Amino acid sequence: MNDYAVGVDLGGTKVATALVRRDGLVVDQIIEPTQKEKGFENVIDRMGASIRAMLERTDSPVAGIGVGAAGSTDSQQGVVVAASNLGWENVPLREMLYERIGDEWRERIWVDKDTNAAVLGEMMYGAGRGSEHIFYVTVGTGIGGGMILDGSIYHGASDGASDFGHLVLDPDGIVCGCGKRGCVETLASGVAIARMAREALNVPDSTTILSELDPGLITAHDVAVAAKNGDQLAKDIITQAGYWLGRALAYYVDLNNPERIIIGGGVMGAGDLLLEPVRQTTYKFALPNNAAAAQILPAGLGADSGVIGAAAFVWQHHKESTQKYQEAT
Amino acid sequence: MNDYAVGVDLGGTKVATALVRRDGLVVDQIIEPTQKEKGFENVIDRMGASIRAMLERTDSPVAGIGVGAAGSTDSQQGVVVAASNLGWENVPLREMLYERIGDEWRERIWVDKDTNAAVLGEMMYGAGRGSEHIFYVTVGTGIGGGMILDGSIYHGASDGASDFGHLVLDPDGIVCGCGKRGCVETLASGVAIARMAREALNVPDSTTILSELDPGLITAHDVAVAAKNGDQLAKDIITQAGYWLGRALAYYVDLNNPERIIIGGGVMGAGDLLLEPVRQTTYKFALPNNAAAAQILPAGLGADSGVIGAAAFVWQHHKESTQKYQEAT
Repeated sequence: MNDYAVGVDLGGTKVATALVRRDGLVVDQIIEPTQKEKGFENVIDRMGASIRAMLERTDSPVAGIGVGAAGSTDSQQGVVVAASNLGWENVPLREMLYERIGDEWRERIWVDKDTNAAVLGEMMYGAGRGSEHIFYVTVGTGIGGGMILDGSIYHGASDGASDFGHLVLDPDGIVCGCGKRGCVETLASGVAIARMAREALNVPDSTTILSELDPGLITAHDVAVAAKNGDQLAKDIITQAGYWLGRALAYYVDLNNPERIIIGGGVMGAGDLLLEPVRQTTYKFALPNNAAAAQILPAGLGADSGVIGAAAFVWQHHKESTQKYQEAT
Repeated sequence: MNDYAVGVDLGGTKVATALVRRDGLVVDQIIEPTQKEKGFENVIDRMGASIRAMLERTDSPVAGIGVGAAGSTDSQQGVVVAASNLGWENVPLREMLYERIGDEWRERIWVDKDTNAAVLGEMMYGAGRGSEHIFYVTVGTGIGGGMILDGSIYHGASDGASDFGHLVLDPDGIVCGCGKRGCVETLASGVAIARMAREALNVPDSTTILSELDPGLITAHDVAVAAKNGDQLAKDIITQAGYWLGRALAYYVDLNNPERIIIGGGVMGAGDLLLEPVRQTTYKFALPNNAAAAQILPAGLGADSGVIGAAAFVWQHHKESTQKYQEAT
């Protein structure tokens, strides 16, 4: 049994490449700026070099390589289909990686979207342990999701499942980057929270500490900090974001009947100030039996969740082949 | 290989029990009024007698018995958990059935909700053939759903998945039987369509043929017939119902990325008058890639869909055990 895997977290800002033990411990790691402006071939050259470094710096055999990419992927073919943060379209990442690290890895590289890495990492090592029906939502600059059904990542018919950020809650609302109006992302993301703060400050208000900041530079982080310091306006904005997340999560709860809903991403820095309105709204709008089945929890993994989850793709594929064998014999 | 199964469609009005060949042909059938007022033991006595009649009237071996029940079920335990149309709560149907037809059937009786029977029947014999990612919606007096993911019925963590009728679309809307406001069921069911017609007729309007009917007795069927005859008010009401169905289906499409959405139930008597606004709205509110993957079709099975789908539970369980064996060996 190989007890190590390499996990790669491919984001628009940084690429993290780690050697991860099967129990989730990060043994070694290289973090580099993505420098996407140099082009995808250059990014993948450097990814390949980091992976080779990980393989060379251990004496133990490595079971495989998992990559979690910030964008939509074709997980069967190992292709990054569209990643706006990277500026990539239809990049055959798996193929380009084994060209760089050696053909013997061809069948042992898995590429999937980063939110699927996150939900898998949470199931194996984080807030999802012990459950096989999990929905993970990341609330950061944007909003995305990943789901585990019956113990495995669910991809949908064409790798499009879990597109939680673009459920339309307010058809007359603000235009989203996707072209639709009133998506969850326009109502509850970090960008939306910052926008709500700016809009509120258009009305002069000396009672909020946010008015001391330059409205043009305000971030969701500023709002979360102010809310934690008891600022009422900031608390109201976070509560409003939590309400919209809860409205959308109630749909998930009644359609897919999960056991755990796990919320991560930068905006979760607001902690219970965000989580409590999410819980209240989800439980109010979902059916009682389905609501009772669904715990809503903060993510359990910290800064290394991206590489840990990506490495977990390797164990998931091992598990599935082992399980099929065990069930049948 | 046994090529026959018994399928039972257990509804509030009638109980249909059929001998169904593996290719979906109904070979023999008994249809009886449910007479739920006689109590669940009496209903199950008669179900048992009908099943025994089916078993006795064939020379071929029968692989198993599937029951599709109008209500929520514990599909693992074979219990009808709550069925308001039957007035049943926590009825251990599987156990009570094998007590009546013989202990040798203990491991060969499957009980699940009727919408799961419907989606399975559609996959095997109807509008879902060739696909493994299907959502079935029934639009009748109420609204319910059933889903096939990766070729199998998906039940969720506690048999609560596919509760499509109670997604809240209009939080300030009409109170639903479930206690929430503005559920899909209050906006697009047969009951909702009849209510919209009654409300419209409160304003005297001689241009609609619906005004010739007693407003208190108007049904969704009347509205569908008027719409097919070109009545503008009736067409507007059906279009409105289709809009709300599409709004809710767009959530399903972006969360679960299906290949087929199949719509059945009495209100589908309106045909394309309902289906076209459903398609337009779903495709407008879902993300383009996910919308492109999802065909929206009318149900392919007719009056016998309940017993055919219920019998298919037997083949589904056979398939799963066979598949696990084949994949591993």
